[in-house]
Amino acid sequence: MRHLAQLGRRTFVTLAGSAVGASSQVGTLMAAAPSASAGSDARSCDVVIVGAGLSGLRAAMVLSAANVNVLVLEARDRVGGRLLTIYPAEGNTRFFIDHGGQWVSAGQDRLIALADELGVPLFPTWGTGAAVDWHNGQRSIYTGMFPSYWSSDAQNQVLAGVQQLEEMANTVPLDAPWTAPNADQWDTQTYADWLAANTSSELARAMLERGVTGVFNSSPGPLSLLAALFVIRSAQDLIRHFHPLGRDQRFVGGAQRIPVKIAQRLRGKILLNSYVYQINNNSDGVEVIADQVTVRARRAIVTLPPTLAGRIRYNPALPASRDHLTESTPMGWVIKVHCIYPTRFWVDAGLSGAVTSDEGAVRTTADNSPSSGKPGILVGFIEGSAARRLAPLSVEQRRAEVIADFVRYFGPEAGNPLEYFEYSWGDDAFARGAYGGYWTQGLWTTYGPDLRAPIGSVHWAGTETSPDWNGKMEGAVQSGEHAAAEILTVL
Amino acid sequence: MRHLAQLGRRTFVTLAGSAVGASSQVGTLMAAAPSASAGSDARSCDVVIVGAGLSGLRAAMVLSAANVNVLVLEARDRVGGRLLTIYPAEGNTRFFIDHGGQWVSAGQDRLIALADELGVPLFPTWGTGAAVDWHNGQRSIYTGMFPSYWSSDAQNQVLAGVQQLEEMANTVPLDAPWTAPNADQWDTQTYADWLAANTSSELARAMLERGVTGVFNSSPGPLSLLAALFVIRSAQDLIRHFHPLGRDQRFVGGAQRIPVKIAQRLRGKILLNSYVYQINNNSDGVEVIADQVTVRARRAIVTLPPTLAGRIRYNPALPASRDHLTESTPMGWVIKVHCIYPTRFWVDAGLSGAVTSDEGAVRTTADNSPSSGKPGILVGFIEGSAARRLAPLSVEQRRAEVIADFVRYFGPEAGNPLEYFEYSWGDDAFARGAYGGYWTQGLWTTYGPDLRAPIGSVHWAGTETSPDWNGKMEGAVQSGEHAAAEILTVL
Repeated sequence: MRHLAQLGRRTFVTLAGSAVGASSQVGTLMAAAPSASAGSDARSCDVVIVGAGLSGLRAAMVLSAANVNVLVLEARDRVGGRLLTIYPAEGNTRFFIDHGGQWVSAGQDRLIALADELGVPLFPTWGTGAAVDWHNGQRSIYTGMFPSYWSSDAQNQVLAGVQQLEEMANTVPLDAPWTAPNADQWDTQTYADWLAANTSSELARAMLERGVTGVFNSSPGPLSLLAALFVIRSAQDLIRHFHPLGRDQRFVGGAQRIPVKIAQRLRGKILLNSYVYQINNNSDGVEVIADQVTVRARRAIVTLPPTLAGRIRYNPALPASRDHLTESTPMGWVIKVHCIYPTRFWVDAGLSGAVTSDEGAVRTTADNSPSSGKPGILVGFIEGSAARRLAPLSVEQRRAEVIADFVRYFGPEAGNPLEYFEYSWGDDAFARGAYGGYWTQGLWTTYGPDLRAPIGSVHWAGTETSPDWNGKMEGAVQSGEHAAAEILTVL
Repeated sequence: MRHLAQLGRRTFVTLAGSAVGASSQVGTLMAAAPSASAGSDARSCDVVIVGAGLSGLRAAMVLSAANVNVLVLEARDRVGGRLLTIYPAEGNTRFFIDHGGQWVSAGQDRLIALADELGVPLFPTWGTGAAVDWHNGQRSIYTGMFPSYWSSDAQNQVLAGVQQLEEMANTVPLDAPWTAPNADQWDTQTYADWLAANTSSELARAMLERGVTGVFNSSPGPLSLLAALFVIRSAQDLIRHFHPLGRDQRFVGGAQRIPVKIAQRLRGKILLNSYVYQINNNSDGVEVIADQVTVRARRAIVTLPPTLAGRIRYNPALPASRDHLTESTPMGWVIKVHCIYPTRFWVDAGLSGAVTSDEGAVRTTADNSPSSGKPGILVGFIEGSAARRLAPLSVEQRRAEVIADFVRYFGPEAGNPLEYFEYSWGDDAFARGAYGGYWTQGLWTTYGPDLRAPIGSVHWAGTETSPDWNGKMEGAVQSGEHAAAEILTVL
C-alpha cells in the first residue's frame, strides 16, 4: 500500500475514490454486505442513512443514542466523506496528512464538543512568523493583515468592504436567506459584480474575492451576492479569513479520526461499498436500493451534496423544484497538495508558511506540520479554474508546477521535498468536488425552500444544508443533528 | 385512457413520465425487455444508444443504414423524449396536441429533409391577424413588431440591440464558443447585465430579454452573455423571435410522428422501460446496465441533456471537468398549456392568437389549431420563475389562472374551453425541464471543450451538444448525425 511506504524522494498520488489511509483501519470494523449482486441482500431498520460522512455518522450517533435502529450505507470503502487522513509512515499516526477538511475555528462548538466526547484532541496550527506575498512578479514578506506595499486606501477598502458585507450579511436569515429584505436584488447579481461596483483598488478587490469565494467555496463559477452574504454570516467573523492562515486548530492525528471513531461506536451499522442508486419513497416508509443490499426503513436521510443527491433515482420522482435545486448547485473544485520536508525550514527564515499570491497553480499555502513539528509539511491549494487547468495534466507535471511555486515562495530548499502528495476532489467519484456546493445567481431565491424540506419519508442533511457553518465540518455535524431531531419528532 | 376520451368540459392532465398519446401506438411495436430484474437480460450489439428521443433515434437510423447493429435503450414507455403528441379524440389524428417541441423554422434543413423522407408533411402555423399586448394592466392589439404605444426610441433600441447582438454573436464560433475573441469577458457577465448596460427603455429590455432567454431556454436562472450570443448565432435570424409567433411551420399530426416513424423503421432495436443507471466504459467497449437488461457494445451514445447524463454512474468515473459540466447546465422549466374551443373564435375579432404580456402565469400564447382549423386551440407557456410558482399548485388552480389570463387577452369566450391540457416538463422524470439545458456564467469558457469530446467508448449527443440550432429539434437531428459519423470513423 503506497500510503504506508517509508519516506523517500517519491511522488504519492491518492487515487480518488480508492481505498486509502484510515480506510484500512476502518474497513475491518464494518459489516461487509455479503452478496455481490445488486440490492439482493434485504435488510430493514428504522432509519437508513445515505452517506457515512460526518453528517450521516453524526445523525446515526444521535439516533442510536435514542434507541433508534439505524443503518448507514456508504458508497466508498471507507467512512469520512470529505474528511480523509493518510499516514505516510507505517505505524506512526503522529505523521498524518489531511487530504480533506482539517481546520477547526472558534465558534464551532458542536464539532469541538464532539471531538472532546470522542477523545480526539486539538492542537493549534503552526502559523507564527511572516507571510509571503507574491504580487506582479515580486516577492515580499509581511506580518499582520496587509503586505507593506499596500496603500492605506487599499487597506481601508478591505476593512470598509468587510464591514459593509457583514452589515449586509446580518440582514440575511440563515435558515431562510430568500427572505432577506434585499434578497431578490442581491440574488440577481454576483459577488464579483458587487466587488466591481464597491471597490476601486484591485488589491482590495482580489483580497475580498479570495476571502469569500476562495475560502468558502472554491467555486469555478460565480457566487451570487446573496449566496456570498449567506456564507459570510454562516461562518461568523469574516475578518478572520482575510488574515493569513494560522488562527485555527487541527485534530491531532487528522480530521478523519472523528468519523472513524464514530464508526467504531456504530459497529455493524455501516455498510461500505454500498452505492445507493434508487430510493422508493412514500409517506410511510422507504426502500433504498444499493449495490448488494436493499434496505427497508421508516425514514431515510440523504446526506450527499445536493448535486449528488440529485443523481439518485427517486420513485416517485422528486418534485421539480427540488430536482432543479440539485441541477443548480455545482461543487467547488480543489486539488490539495502537500510537500514533506525533513524540517520546517521556513521557520529559520522567520516565515509562517502562509502565502498570498496572484500567480501560479498554488496561490494559498500553510504550514501543515503535525503537532510534533516533524516532519515539516507545507500544504497548498489549487483552486477553481486553476484546478480545471491542472487536473488533466500528469502527476509529474502538477508536481513540477507545485514545487516551482513553493520554490518561488520559500526558496530553493522547497525544491526537494521528501514526498509529494495530492488529492483532486473533483476527480473523487463520490465527492466530485470540494469544499462544497455553491449557489449561482437566482438559486437561493428560486429554490431555497427546497433545500431542507423533507419529501415523503426522505430527509436531507449534509453540510450544504446547514444554516450555520455551511460547507464546514461544523455544518455537517449540525445538519446531522438537525435531521436526527426532525426524525425523532415523527418516529 | 384519458387522452382518448371524447371531448367534454373536463380538465386533462398528462402525468409526467407516464404512458401518453402516441406511446400507445409505439409500445406495441417495441421489443419489451423480458425480465423484471435489473440488468438480468444480456444483449450485445455494435452501438448502444441511451435515449430514444430525436437525437438517439436519428443516430440509430444513420448507423443502421450503414449496417451497424444498434440497440436503443429508453427509460420511458414511449419514444420521442421532449416530443410528445396526444390525440384527444379517439381515432382522429387530425386533432392533435403537441405537449413538447413543435415549431419548425426555415433553415432547419435536416429536420425538414428527415420529415420529408418519413412522409410527415408540414403545415403553416396559424398566425394571421393582430397580436394582443398586455402592459401595465392595459390591453391593446397590434400588427407588426411593436405595439402602437411604443416610442420610436424604444423600437430603435430593440432594432439596434438585435443588430449589435447579432454582430457580437457572429464572432462566436459555434463549435467552440470559448474561443471567441471576447469569450472570457462575455462569459463573466450575464445577458441581463448586458441589457441593463445597453438599453435604457424597459420595454426594449424586456423584449430583448424575452426574445432570447424565453425563446431559447426558458431558464429560471441567468444566462451568461456568451451563452446568449451562442444561442443567437446557433438559431440564425434573431429578429424572427421578436415578432409575435406565426412564421414557423408545424408537423401535420404532431411532432412526435417523427420519432414514432423512425421507431417503426427500427423495429426490434428499441427497448422501452429501460432506465440506464450504469455504464462501464473502457477504450474497447462498454457495458450499459439498465432496468431489465445489460448491453455490451463497442460504443455507446448518451443522448440525455447534460444534467441527466451526469446522473448515470460511469465506471471509471467521468473526468472531473466533464462531470462538472453536467453539474452546471440545469434545465429550463416550461409548463405548456392548451385550451380547446369549438372554433377559432379569436379570428372573428381579427386576432392571431399571439400574446405578449408583462403579467400573469401565461405571457406568451399562440394559435395552435391543427391544419384543418378545427377545433380552435390556444397554447400558452408558463415559463421559468412562473413555472416554479405554479407547479406546486393543484391542476384546478393552474387551470383557473391560465383561463383567467386567456380571458384577459381574448375576452369572455376564452373562459369556457371544452378541454384544458397541461404538461409540466420540470416534473417529467426523464426530462426534468424544457426546452433545454442552459449555460450560466463562466461555464462555456471553463467546461466548453468537455461538451462533445468522447470519453473512452462513450460519445455524446442530444440537442444541447449541437453547434447549430442548439436546443431545437434540428439540433437534436444534427447531434445524432454527428455522433453517428464520429462512430463510423472508428468502428
